[in-house]
Amino acid sequence: MISAAPAQQMQGEALAARIEVLAQFSSEPDALTRLTLTPAHRDAADLVVGWMAQAGMDVHIDALATVVGRYEGTDPAGKTLLIGSHIDTVRNAGKYDGNFGVIAAIAAVDRLNRESTKLPFAIEILAYGDEEGVRYPSTLTGSRAVAGTFEQAALDDKDADGVSRREALARFGIDPAYAATQARDPARVLAYVEVHIEQGPVLEAQGFPVGIVTAINGATRGAITVTGRSGHAGTQPMSMRSDALTAAAEMILAIERIGRSTRGLVATVGRIETPRGAVNIVPGAVAMSLDVRSPSDDERREAVERIETEIAAIAARRGVSAKFACSHDMPAAPCDASLMDALEQSFLHLGFTPYRLASGAGHDAMSFRGRIPIAMIFARCKAGVSHNPAEYASPGDMEAATAVLYDFIRMLSRER
Amino acid sequence: MISAAPAQQMQGEALAARIEVLAQFSSEPDALTRLTLTPAHRDAADLVVGWMAQAGMDVHIDALATVVGRYEGTDPAGKTLLIGSHIDTVRNAGKYDGNFGVIAAIAAVDRLNRESTKLPFAIEILAYGDEEGVRYPSTLTGSRAVAGTFEQAALDDKDADGVSRREALARFGIDPAYAATQARDPARVLAYVEVHIEQGPVLEAQGFPVGIVTAINGATRGAITVTGRSGHAGTQPMSMRSDALTAAAEMILAIERIGRSTRGLVATVGRIETPRGAVNIVPGAVAMSLDVRSPSDDERREAVERIETEIAAIAARRGVSAKFACSHDMPAAPCDASLMDALEQSFLHLGFTPYRLASGAGHDAMSFRGRIPIAMIFARCKAGVSHNPAEYASPGDMEAATAVLYDFIRMLSRER
Repeated sequence: MISAAPAQQMQGEALAARIEVLAQFSSEPDALTRLTLTPAHRDAADLVVGWMAQAGMDVHIDALATVVGRYEGTDPAGKTLLIGSHIDTVRNAGKYDGNFGVIAAIAAVDRLNRESTKLPFAIEILAYGDEEGVRYPSTLTGSRAVAGTFEQAALDDKDADGVSRREALARFGIDPAYAATQARDPARVLAYVEVHIEQGPVLEAQGFPVGIVTAINGATRGAITVTGRSGHAGTQPMSMRSDALTAAAEMILAIERIGRSTRGLVATVGRIETPRGAVNIVPGAVAMSLDVRSPSDDERREAVERIETEIAAIAARRGVSAKFACSHDMPAAPCDASLMDALEQSFLHLGFTPYRLASGAGHDAMSFRGRIPIAMIFARCKAGVSHNPAEYASPGDMEAATAVLYDFIRMLSRER
Repeated sequence: MISAAPAQQMQGEALAARIEVLAQFSSEPDALTRLTLTPAHRDAADLVVGWMAQAGMDVHIDALATVVGRYEGTDPAGKTLLIGSHIDTVRNAGKYDGNFGVIAAIAAVDRLNRESTKLPFAIEILAYGDEEGVRYPSTLTGSRAVAGTFEQAALDDKDADGVSRREALARFGIDPAYAATQARDPARVLAYVEVHIEQGPVLEAQGFPVGIVTAINGATRGAITVTGRSGHAGTQPMSMRSDALTAAAEMILAIERIGRSTRGLVATVGRIETPRGAVNIVPGAVAMSLDVRSPSDDERREAVERIETEIAAIAARRGVSAKFACSHDMPAAPCDASLMDALEQSFLHLGFTPYRLASGAGHDAMSFRGRIPIAMIFARCKAGVSHNPAEYASPGDMEAATAVLYDFIRMLSRER
């Protein structure tokens, strides 16, 4: 176990050491893979429980597997500042995505605790475990439960092995019956803050260690299924085929074209498979994913409509059928103007340029859109690489982001 | 258990009944899936053992899981007529592919046995269990062992779960140490005959119940791997991506174009996957299969070269890498001219038009190319559909093919 950095100094090396310790919890020996509600997630959550307790917090794991650490304020009637991020990962992930935000929040509270600083508001750190959306079609259940927008139907989602979220929660050691009771009263919440690596190339290109997030891009996700007619790959003449995969290939290229057509828009097919496919069978079915994001909700929705139109046209021309089933439609989430101004004060106070940028990636912060004021702090990462073992944020940049978070918390306490 | 048809009549209904009985052996409750060396294959093999024994044959299962039934001739020094087909299937298969050829052969021998007809040569029926090539990269191991071209390296092939063929044979109850000892001396073999459904649309289009195969098309199979750079689907701008899947999509369309460019050529990508892929990740890797077939070995090899050139060009243009690894390269196998003439006599004798056609599908008969004279009889099937639950051959057409096989055997006995 790595002990926390001394209160007097926010050591980047201590943050980096905790990144390494947390990265040991994986479902795979040679890669970091920590999908929601797996044994690796449970082990990581237990470690975070210990770190939070060391930082002077009362800790529990809630009904959606979020580790919740509470650092009480001076005023029992005071509000609560929520600081969150996530400890689940994609497959073959980087070590910083989500995990750094949790470690930064604990380090900031640990510093307050070692200084014996009590604030006029309580702090709750929320280490969610369902941000990546790899295992189940729905996602952000942890933050949605806290925001009060959790939908019970998400408990019936099934993973690729047919294990429902309800069952996975039970195996994790949780009774999901209390899922809907996690919601915080917005009137009792001061703000929601999240620290995260940028996961994009902008801060590096601009030469800034940290940045102020202006908004989180909206996203549409779902599944495209293409149905043709399977047949023998040796005897079915090319002219008589209804090949679901060649149709899907045309659709993938159309989606790429649409993604490229508008600045700031991205459109991705991240996963594809040919169910029951084999080398010697003309594919009768294809299942693939779609992910479309944009800072503009109008542009994103228009792009999805264009994709649906193109898919239908390609399917009709090739004699197959195709449909897109949307599983996730999240509008863009603007950050709170006065919180951005407060962050700007902290940046200037610590000598950083208060550079503002949009977030291309989704974050749990989105769940609080329209309910609780949001702020986000980005740390620079190398080459914009994320969801990849090469993901990297330097100790110095992590220290900078953590220092900003600490200063921002103090700033808020002076304001109230 | 369905009893065999009376010796005096080749009843199509009895053949159809055995098709249904054999189709019960599947690894899936609602589909016919009987991959090589699975428990379903073992159960099917045991049923075939019983049918062969009922038809008066000495039966054993050889070191590559081929069920071998021997019907002795009058002359202990005589040659052997080999009659083969296979009882493994693709996933979600039709009931007739392979299985019909085995049932037809048993029915023909059963008729000889009930008539107490002994021939100047022995007959061996070979019910192979490794024709489809779904589970392992290598295939036709059963017929290759009989032909004397089995390669020991095939024992080390692994399936998707990491189970080697050696291990699968052991689980099947076989010691693969004897694999190489199954080879027949070509000097002691009269011919190799195989009955099969056409699996293509030609006989139906021409209006003939049965046909004489002129050659089996050659085939190249292998795996195409595309390697790009994975990244975050939300933050990686479209212009900075090395997306392995959009590159693969272009390759799939190029392969389709090349397949369409030459009459008689077919080119198929039957299977694709994005290893470690997820909805929110730009794909860093794609694995897909390639299958190219043609009656002309030159045209097939030229097509594969064109595909390799196109793949390299697309990869270079998109900043990814790609390669094709050939796992199977089988030249076209011409049928024996004098055996085709003998079949023609049987067709005419039974009142069928001796229509000749090439086989677009591969068959175990290919394994005997250049070593033992090959003959093949095709039965018409519905709409050319195969490798699909809708695969169908009528009782009448199966009866016709079986009658031709019986007559052909008698024809050979009169010739010798």
